[in-house]
Amino acid sequence: MSWTLTAADLSDLARGATLLGTGGGGDPYIGKMLVEQVLGQGSITVLDPDDLSDEMFVIPTAQMGAPTVMIEKIPAGFEPTLALRTLEEHLGRRADATMPIECGGINSMIPLVVAAETGLPVVDADGMGRAFPELSMETFAVYGVHGSPLALAGERGERVIIDTGDDDKQMEWLARGIAIRLGGVAHIAEYAMSGAEVKRTAVPRTISMALALGRAIRLAREENRSPFEAIATTLSTTLYSHVRELFVGKVSDVERRTTDGFAKGSAVISALDPSSTDRMEIAFQNENLTAHRNGELVAIVPDLICVVDHESAEPITTEGLRYGQRVRVLGISTPEMMRTPEALRAFGPAAFGLSESFTPVEGRARA
Amino acid sequence: MSWTLTAADLSDLARGATLLGTGGGGDPYIGKMLVEQVLGQGSITVLDPDDLSDEMFVIPTAQMGAPTVMIEKIPAGFEPTLALRTLEEHLGRRADATMPIECGGINSMIPLVVAAETGLPVVDADGMGRAFPELSMETFAVYGVHGSPLALAGERGERVIIDTGDDDKQMEWLARGIAIRLGGVAHIAEYAMSGAEVKRTAVPRTISMALALGRAIRLAREENRSPFEAIATTLSTTLYSHVRELFVGKVSDVERRTTDGFAKGSAVISALDPSSTDRMEIAFQNENLTAHRNGELVAIVPDLICVVDHESAEPITTEGLRYGQRVRVLGISTPEMMRTPEALRAFGPAAFGLSESFTPVEGRARA
Repeated sequence: MSWTLTAADLSDLARGATLLGTGGGGDPYIGKMLVEQVLGQGSITVLDPDDLSDEMFVIPTAQMGAPTVMIEKIPAGFEPTLALRTLEEHLGRRADATMPIECGGINSMIPLVVAAETGLPVVDADGMGRAFPELSMETFAVYGVHGSPLALAGERGERVIIDTGDDDKQMEWLARGIAIRLGGVAHIAEYAMSGAEVKRTAVPRTISMALALGRAIRLAREENRSPFEAIATTLSTTLYSHVRELFVGKVSDVERRTTDGFAKGSAVISALDPSSTDRMEIAFQNENLTAHRNGELVAIVPDLICVVDHESAEPITTEGLRYGQRVRVLGISTPEMMRTPEALRAFGPAAFGLSESFTPVEGRARA
Repeated sequence: MSWTLTAADLSDLARGATLLGTGGGGDPYIGKMLVEQVLGQGSITVLDPDDLSDEMFVIPTAQMGAPTVMIEKIPAGFEPTLALRTLEEHLGRRADATMPIECGGINSMIPLVVAAETGLPVVDADGMGRAFPELSMETFAVYGVHGSPLALAGERGERVIIDTGDDDKQMEWLARGIAIRLGGVAHIAEYAMSGAEVKRTAVPRTISMALALGRAIRLAREENRSPFEAIATTLSTTLYSHVRELFVGKVSDVERRTTDGFAKGSAVISALDPSSTDRMEIAFQNENLTAHRNGELVAIVPDLICVVDHESAEPITTEGLRYGQRVRVLGISTPEMMRTPEALRAFGPAAFGLSESFTPVEGRARA
């Protein structure tokens, strides 16, 4: 069923999208400000994927770049819609709706900027079901819809169209080169598809799930209930039904570098009890990729590894990690369509150069 | 007057284009092989710029990249025409002719590959009057025709369109980023313009000049005359009327690195007489930029600094420079339209970060 989103929903959505960002995805609070600026007292229509007609034409919109750069280089604001319009002009066809390519992080918000500016509805679905660092890591691509042609817009009105046919990795490689030369961030429109293709290839209802997660965390805090139980309860009825607490501790080391257009590095979380040698090490490329507890792998991409404040459950991005922060690390299971062999080829451990194989978090860590 | 070019002309054209490449421009002998492959026994119509109708639509075609990479990474062959077709499709208009953007080096040949493949004529003019390393260094841009939109094609059929409005330096920056990610070489179509714009902004008759230079050098060798006198005689009736011998010696040092998509470095040429301390130092970024004789500047970009074999006058590119080669260094004056204040802003010394100001080679070096 379609529903309506207003500025009052954006804080909850941002909180939930940061959790689904699994450390990356870019800070949605900047995206929230962009939406608020355009939306004002207006509203955005959000379409349930089941309600799409097969012939409907959907053009997803997004920001790409290193999260470490995104928080310092704020968009002018017109870029996402310029990317959409550039792709429409190239294809000779207007979009009936936009959609996220990534429901985690700032890309939960960018399609809302476009919707508020153009009046287009937004489809409640995405192609990552979380955040991933590369444009080719999409369920869209896994199930046969390719990213090309991609349109890219820069803050000085630069427009670039990239067409690599079915080769989404080459599309990512070339678009990343442009984003780097634009200072580390760019806005894009890609994976144009029909309503039928959305229904076949997208992870459904991820905007509403992010909103529900953010709202549940806030309400639990307001009512002095456990926000961690609220997260588990909210996810129990979704495609992300398993939640595991992987570690509780404080951040004792963070190593982070912005390289090749990505934020790469690792974080160490030590036990709160100083006499304990327990520790968790998390490796990331924009998003958290692996969690090792005392050297043992307990969660691995594409399952979600989320670092949150140990009391409030406020999600913390990799660029927000600070020495001494007290945190909990949650492992959340991804939907089955993101765990098939073809999905794991696109965004499983090997796609990040990791030697470990994928095992579901619910199989590795006790509830 | 229009004229016809056949495969029999290509060796002379390649020799002349290498001279005009002033050390860079990419090796035209590879381009020559590409033309021969497509042209066979056919011919190409070359249009004199004076004969163009004002309404004629011209799309120049070229290769971009580091010459050091170009000699190792041979194009598949279809890329230049794919770039042309991509730009035609984007603009919704078919070209009536193609044209070089650069008459020196391999870009004397790339438009001939397109002409042979498509049957289009080639305009006898270009936008550099020699070779330059960057796409923004064009008399077209200096006199008001901009490079965007630019279409770029890669060897696996990748197609990219870049539109930076009037900002040709930003166009160069983004296109270079793509070329680097394609392995260091790409093919492009850019600076689409009318016949009237060609007549106003292009350096005229540079294909025929390159052909005449190459032919004059060959004939002088065959008839045991001085090829150096043949060069001077040929140029005396063109817009490049001053030729100066800047140095005779042997290559004693070459420092060369491929960085940021360019071949950068310097060469030292020492006197043939071992008791002499005379030396010439040449700095280059793809093309030769400055020539210092015993520390004194004797020629500087945009005038041509050409290193040739000391006896045969065969031009030598920077990637062809070898320790011990006996060479002569020639300085050749560029046309007045390349020495105006606006032209020097685009491709004079300051555009390369050089602190020296431009002084014509005929004013610095004795005849």
